Amino acid sequence: MSEPLHHDLSAGTERLATDRDVIGLLGLIAYTELATFGRLATDAANAPTLAQRHQLSRHAGRMLARHELVLERIADLGGDPEAEMGAFDGIFDDFESRTPSSTWWEGVLKGYVGHGVADDFCRLAADGLDDRSRDLVLAILSDGVDSERSATVIADAAAADPVLASRLALWGRRLVGEALGLVQSLLAEREGLSRLLADGAGHRTEAGTPGSADVTGTAADRQAWVFSQLTAEHTRRMGRLGLAA
Amino acid sequence: MSEPLHHDLSAGTERLATDRDVIGLLGLIAYTELATFGRLATDAANAPTLAQRHQLSRHAGRMLARHELVLERIADLGGDPEAEMGAFDGIFDDFESRTPSSTWWEGVLKGYVGHGVADDFCRLAADGLDDRSRDLVLAILSDGVDSERSATVIADAAAADPVLASRLALWGRRLVGEALGLVQSLLAEREGLSRLLADGAGHRTEAGTPGSADVTGTAADRQAWVFSQLTAEHTRRMGRLGLAA
Repeated sequence: MSEPLHHDLSAGTERLATDRDVIGLLGLIAYTELATFGRLATDAANAPTLAQRHQLSRHAGRMLARHELVLERIADLGGDPEAEMGAFDGIFDDFESRTPSSTWWEGVLKGYVGHGVADDFCRLAADGLDDRSRDLVLAILSDGVDSERSATVIADAAAADPVLASRLALWGRRLVGEALGLVQSLLAEREGLSRLLADGAGHRTEAGTPGSADVTGTAADRQAWVFSQLTAEHTRRMGRLGLAA
Repeated sequence: MSEPLHHDLSAGTERLATDRDVIGLLGLIAYTELATFGRLATDAANAPTLAQRHQLSRHAGRMLARHELVLERIADLGGDPEAEMGAFDGIFDDFESRTPSSTWWEGVLKGYVGHGVADDFCRLAADGLDDRSRDLVLAILSDGVDSERSATVIADAAAADPVLASRLALWGRRLVGEALGLVQSLLAEREGLSRLLADGAGHRTEAGTPGSADVTGTAADRQAWVFSQLTAEHTRRMGRLGLAA
């Protein structure tokens, strides 16, 4: 590797995460963005109208551009982009098989909720990164403000059809439950992610961020805090769609 | 419109195509690229391996970038990009319903053959465009040299599996027949495309291009010539895949 991967954010904190963990998180993000691209583009191809096909295709293209940026950063850090993505191959299979969507709208909402939770989780884990990687990850993920635009497809339809809105609200609750289950598996199976979250908690404790888990907390405490953060974001996200969370 | 759309390529030839026809062809190309993007991205999402998913996703992203360039050109010419694409909405529906693919490989080959024929047809029609639009169209379409890369997915698999290769060769013949049927419908229903092809034939006659249909030929002559060109390109394309045409 050609450069130091992290700089201590405070002299008082010992980092738990390793350089490998940093690259590992980037691999997760790259894999997630590729999966999101595939889902959005497929939804786009099957959209009811040309305007929706066009709008969702553009959005998918932006996700692919993000993905490429993350791969570049992995290579910069001396990692093998394909291998780092490959380490996460299949992580969504269980989530997908547990949430078969019965309509196009349910599929679009699944992509939106699933991607939203994944983004939020990566944002939390990014708090444990070195400054430069964290800035890159946050810049990439907050390009997702744009992604809210794809949500107008759902919001418009839900506003026009109360029955659809009510079905989608129910579906959203199902989806977030399954998504949190996936996060739980990831935390149990990927120790690097746990270390990043622990470091992130440390940074937040020093910064005095209210509501953050204490650095001295247990892994279970941290997981509970992560879930509460992800759930709160999900509620806001559903609110933007005009759907009850 | 803010600029003249065409410049006489020769003083001796009267153009048949109108400015509207030029924008119309760009609309067809934009629509085709968007459809190709959707097909490739869907194939990518369902690809057997992560490496294939990655390779095909990137290729899909390039098709989307082409699509955006064509939309920009339509807007430059004073056209409404959404409306021009919309004029072709659904043109592939019949082709799709007549060629249900029974395996992932058949789907990928369908995209490759269908897109190849569409590109070749647009290239022939582009011969009837003004210089600037033609240059843009040809630059966009020949970025498709790149697209040959996606064909390595098929070529590699066919080389490793003679039974698959033989089934795909048969499938390719079916596909090109249906694609030529689609071209025939387009020529019958879209007079602007016929006018562009007639102008293109005129340009080739003046340039003395061997084998080109004479400008004085009938529409049926030109269609026969278009079919012979598309068939010859298809044969070369299948050859690059190691498949008998």
